[in-house]
Order: sequence, then structure tokens, then C-alpha cells
Amino acid sequence: MRDVSVIGVGQTPVGEHWDRSLRDLAVEAIAEARRDAGVDRVDALYVGNMLSGELAGQENVATLVADAAGLLPKEALKIEAACASGGAVLRAAYLAVACGAHDYVLAVGVEKMTDVLTDGVTAALALAADADYEAAHGITFAALNAILMRRYMHEHRASHEDFAPFSINAHRNAALNPCAMYRQPITLEDFIRSPIVADPINILDSAGISDGAAALLVCPASEARRARRPPVRITGSACATDTLGLAERTDPLVWQAVADSARLACGQAKLKPKDIDLFELHDAFTIVSVLSLEACGFADRGSALKLAAEGRIALEGDIPICTLGGLKGRGHPVGASGTYQLVETALQLRGEAGPAQVKGASIGMAQSVGGSGSVAITHILQV
Amino acid sequence: MRDVSVIGVGQTPVGEHWDRSLRDLAVEAIAEARRDAGVDRVDALYVGNMLSGELAGQENVATLVADAAGLLPKEALKIEAACASGGAVLRAAYLAVACGAHDYVLAVGVEKMTDVLTDGVTAALALAADADYEAAHGITFAALNAILMRRYMHEHRASHEDFAPFSINAHRNAALNPCAMYRQPITLEDFIRSPIVADPINILDSAGISDGAAALLVCPASEARRARRPPVRITGSACATDTLGLAERTDPLVWQAVADSARLACGQAKLKPKDIDLFELHDAFTIVSVLSLEACGFADRGSALKLAAEGRIALEGDIPICTLGGLKGRGHPVGASGTYQLVETALQLRGEAGPAQVKGASIGMAQSVGGSGSVAITHILQV
Repeated sequence: MRDVSVIGVGQTPVGEHWDRSLRDLAVEAIAEARRDAGVDRVDALYVGNMLSGELAGQENVATLVADAAGLLPKEALKIEAACASGGAVLRAAYLAVACGAHDYVLAVGVEKMTDVLTDGVTAALALAADADYEAAHGITFAALNAILMRRYMHEHRASHEDFAPFSINAHRNAALNPCAMYRQPITLEDFIRSPIVADPINILDSAGISDGAAALLVCPASEARRARRPPVRITGSACATDTLGLAERTDPLVWQAVADSARLACGQAKLKPKDIDLFELHDAFTIVSVLSLEACGFADRGSALKLAAEGRIALEGDIPICTLGGLKGRGHPVGASGTYQLVETALQLRGEAGPAQVKGASIGMAQSVGGSGSVAITHILQV
Repeated sequence: MRDVSVIGVGQTPVGEHWDRSLRDLAVEAIAEARRDAGVDRVDALYVGNMLSGELAGQENVATLVADAAGLLPKEALKIEAACASGGAVLRAAYLAVACGAHDYVLAVGVEKMTDVLTDGVTAALALAADADYEAAHGITFAALNAILMRRYMHEHRASHEDFAPFSINAHRNAALNPCAMYRQPITLEDFIRSPIVADPINILDSAGISDGAAALLVCPASEARRARRPPVRITGSACATDTLGLAERTDPLVWQAVADSARLACGQAKLKPKDIDLFELHDAFTIVSVLSLEACGFADRGSALKLAAEGRIALEGDIPICTLGGLKGRGHPVGASGTYQLVETALQLRGEAGPAQVKGASIGMAQSVGGSGSVAITHILQV
């Protein structure tokens, strides 16, 4: 296997882009990634997207993007792993370059969710759950995560308020990110007063519905010096799965796919959690941050709330998370979120995260999760 | 890159499986592929599917299949390229094994279309067209192909009847395939009297709406001798794209993505079209067979109808196509069709195609097409 590096990154601001289509957003992110790399060549592109069929009446979206971005007749395939689709495309790009089939490959994530009424989006997101045994009963993802949160609160005698530091941290960091959707810092009082979505989950526990696209250009590490910006090596890439239905788990508070993919990626990079300088985790809900930190070995079981309370997840903490706002603060255009996380990780490692810069960051981990932890994709990036 | 071989294949009968779910079909095909190989190990699976979100209310379908097939916690991702999704998964599996990331990978295609009324399926299939510039006008895939067929008839002074040999050949071969959906041979008169779908396309020009799943297990060629059945090498694998919208083409009768992917795959295998013993092409409509044969160099422009009329596409011809019925005769569960084509090609090369066996076949080409020729994936298999 050849070593692979990220040589260019691009992203659109996350927001409600009612005046722009799927293709517009993807084209902008791709153009920025190519400009950033200063490299013209693209041999293939993999497009991460979850809901274009349901929300935009468009499948075959990889061809759409290749066409709109002027990349015909290059290989173009869509990869879908629910909300982990954005991580999945970097994995596909990594494998295609590692094996020598292609040299310059784009990993693009794009999602357009805000043209549809919220009820429609909520129903579409439920397609990532088990259609026959979960969604058929009308349960939403907020409700599935509410079950997890309630169970966690029961098991570890936690209050809902204890989850506030995750949301406060995400919003504080998002305020420093010009591409973030929710740039207003929030207080503990805001968190407490936030309206309930699915008890105990409230709005400030939950990542918002968003539009956006982000892209990464990768190539063999041996050719990465040609790029305009400092290359970022991909030293770990792994995907793992768990039961689709939450009820099938022996212990719903153990996110095994998250744990497995992190362990595999760290093993490839020959690193331990303590070596990681920042962790872009999949904070679709505050409880997901908690379960991810515990599954990946950054906190013992039941202790992630303490980690957050002590400020250790902040930019200046020992394990900064959601450094540019995370899904909560930056926004969560589902099929694109994984690529945003990876773009942000690369910017941090290049020292280009502006006021949100994690000082001296040289090793970053980015993790995308689909469904109720049913699929997880973890990448380790290094400079 | 490591050489890669197919060591096991499995398929469900194609049909209207109203009593079976997506997971049931996928699990059956996977179990058969693993039994066929006589190998237990699976490191990852890639699932080709186009319409589970629209027709079954289920995304995250790769995790669903991994879970149902007892393959947790292995990597599982869905690849979508419209009706070429089944070809795309073998490509993903090939790349993952070629690069050394995995050793034993399943490529699975599954589609469940017949639980929904035909109008709903027709609308869902139109998601592979350009939503903004084609489907928004209400055009269906039958109508898009009718435009191509009418143009071809005009340009080459052909009659609709001239396309009959493709449908007759497909049905003749399907009658020899126990997994085919439409096993009744048809006559020229049947073809002529068949009801119009979108003038000039009639029902016997068109592949039917179907349910089914097919799977292939691949591994490094160096380990393929361990398998129970003779291994089949993948000597070419390529994907190419063309404009999403038909109206954007300089010449709509030149299927450039089809041509490009075939040329690239043949180049990798160091073969010319005349070396190919059989060609499993994407006969979603008879006009697609014609354009594919011409784009891939098996017939000069305007001469594919003559090729068919002379019987050269038959099992005993010099370029047998749709040897086990093709999309027309076997049925066309869209996201699975590509994997069926590949399974059938492997069976032919192993000499296990029964009464449909192409004598002495040692080199086969299988090609999946998505949209109106907007994405094409070609594989060359050899024994």
C-alpha cells in the first residue's frame, strides 16, 4: 500500500442555502480544494451523500457532481453510510490511491436539507435506523438518542445539565469559524432553558439541519510535496459496524463500532488515544460525544461528563473536540459532515485554524458515525 | 497492486419476492457465495443498491446487510451509481483487495422494487436522470431511451422490428437460466404485438421491474487456490462518466462513458474487443444493447442491428451477449443487476452455465450502465 496525503481542502459555509443547489455547493467545495492544493489533476471522485434521493429527487449524484465540476469522464461513485458518508468517501479515496489505481482523487461530501420542511427531514433521517423494526414505530433519531441519554443519566446518576459543557464548547468554537452555521456562544442558562425535542434531549443537545459541501484532494505521499500547502498524511483509516437496531445491543451504552474503528485506525498509525492532539467527533447529540469519548478510550466509562466539566475538551484542554464547532456549532449537513470534520482536522494540523487553532497540533483524529452508532469510520491525520 | 480473483458467487432467483425483505435476499446471496467459495472469512462488504431509500424506507443498507448476514463488526459501505451500482461494488471490492487493506471482500447487489406500485417505481428510477433539467419535466427512463431509439432509427434507417433479435436472444437464453424471471421464449410476432411503453419502445424492448440479490467473494489471486471452485481473475476494472443529462451530449448516439470504461478495462487486461468470448451488457432497453455494442467496438456505428440479425450475439455466435437472459430476460433489480451480470460471467468462465454455456469461454466482459449512459463500469474476468 502506498502512503496517502491530503493536499487540498475546501468547504462552503454551512447554512440554509435556499438559493443554491446540490451541484452548486459541491462545485464550490471542489474548486476550493483544487485551488488550495494548486494541483489541476483529478483522476476520480467519490461523493458522500445520504439524502439527495429523498430530499432533492436526485440519485446518481456522483455523476451529477463530476459533470457540474467539469470532471467528466473521470470515475465518480457515491458512497453512503448514513451520517458517516463523509468519512466513507475519504476512506474510498484513500484505498484508490493506496492501491495505485488512481493518483489524484477527490473526496467530496454534500448535503442539501433545508429546502424541505423539518418533518420531512426528520422522517428522511430515520431512514438510517432499522426501517422494519425501529422507524416503522415512528421513532426519530432524537428519540433514539433520548433513550441513550436517559439510560446514561440513570446508570451514572447524571443530570441533563451535566451535558451542557459539550454544547457550550461547540458553540464557543463555532464562533471562531467563519464557515459555521451557529456562531453565537451560549451559556449554561441558555442550555437549561432550551426547548425539549425528545425528553431529555433539547435543541441545544442537537445538531441542526443544514446545507453544505466539503472536499479533500488526496494523492500519494511521495507526490504531495508538489502541492501549494503542507501535506497532511493519512496514517489510519478504518470502518466498523454494529447492529442496525439499538435494541439489539447487549449494552446500548457501549458503542462498539466506534470503539472498533478507532482501535483499528490507531493501530494502523501505531498510536494510543493519549497521542491524539485533537478529536473531531460526531456530536450529532451531546450524548453521542459522551459515548464516543468513552468508546475511543479518552475517558473511562461514566467519566466523559467529568472530562467536559473540567474543560479538558476545550481548545486548550488535553483532548480538544469539535474545535471548529463540531456538528452542533458548525452545522450537520449529514452526508457532508464527515468531510467537514476531515477538512477542519487538516486545517488544524496545517496551523490554519485561525483563532480556533489548537497549539502545536500534529496528530488529529476524525470520526463519523452513522445510525445509532451502527457504522463508524475513523481517520488519523498527521503532519 | 495485488491481483484479485473471484472465488465465490451466489444469487437469488430474480422475481417478485413479496414475501421476502431486502435483508432476506441479500443474506441468501451472501450465504451462497460463501458456500460456493468454501471460505469462511469475510473482511469487508460493499453493498450496491439504488432505491432502498425511496422504495423500502431504508438507507444505511450496508450496515443492515452486514448485521443480517452475521458479518458485524466488519467494514460495510453502500456504493451507488444508479443502475450501475452492482458493477460499482465489485470495483470497490477489487480496489480494497488490490491495495492490501482487506483480503476477503464481498461485493453484494440487492434491490427490492416490486412491493411498490409501478408508477412509484418509474418515478424512483427517474432519480437517476437530472432532477432539475430532465425529471422535473416528467420524463421517464423509457421516454429517454425512446428518444435515443427514435434517433437511431432515423439516422440508420432502421425499423422498430430490427431491434427484435435482442429481445428474442435475451428470452431464449433466460429460458435456460433457473434464476431468470422471464423464462418464456418469444417470437418476432410477440415482439411486434407487444404494447407500447414510450413510442417506439414496447414492453419487450424493456427490462422488467424485479427483486433480487447477487454476491461475489473476492480475494488476492495468490490465495484463490484455497477456494472450492476454480478462481476467476479480475484483469480489468474501470469506471467512466458522461453528462448526466442526455441533452448535453454532442452526439446522443455515442455512449462515451461506456466506450471509455470498456477501453480502460481492456487496456488493463491487454485485450481487444475481438478477444472477448462473451459480453454481459446492460440491456435495460434494446437500444442500450445496440449503443453499448457500438461504443465498445464490437460493431461499427450503425451496424449493431446487423450483428444481431446475423445471430452473432447468440450463445453460439462470435460475441454472445446476455447469455443467461440479460436484464431483459433475467430481470433487472437495478442495484443488483451489475452483480448478477458478474456472477453469470464467472459461471460461464467456470463452465457452469448449464445449457446456456458458451463453449470454451475464457474471457468475459461485464458492463453496468447508470442513467442514460452517464456512468459506466466495466470489468474483464478471465480464467
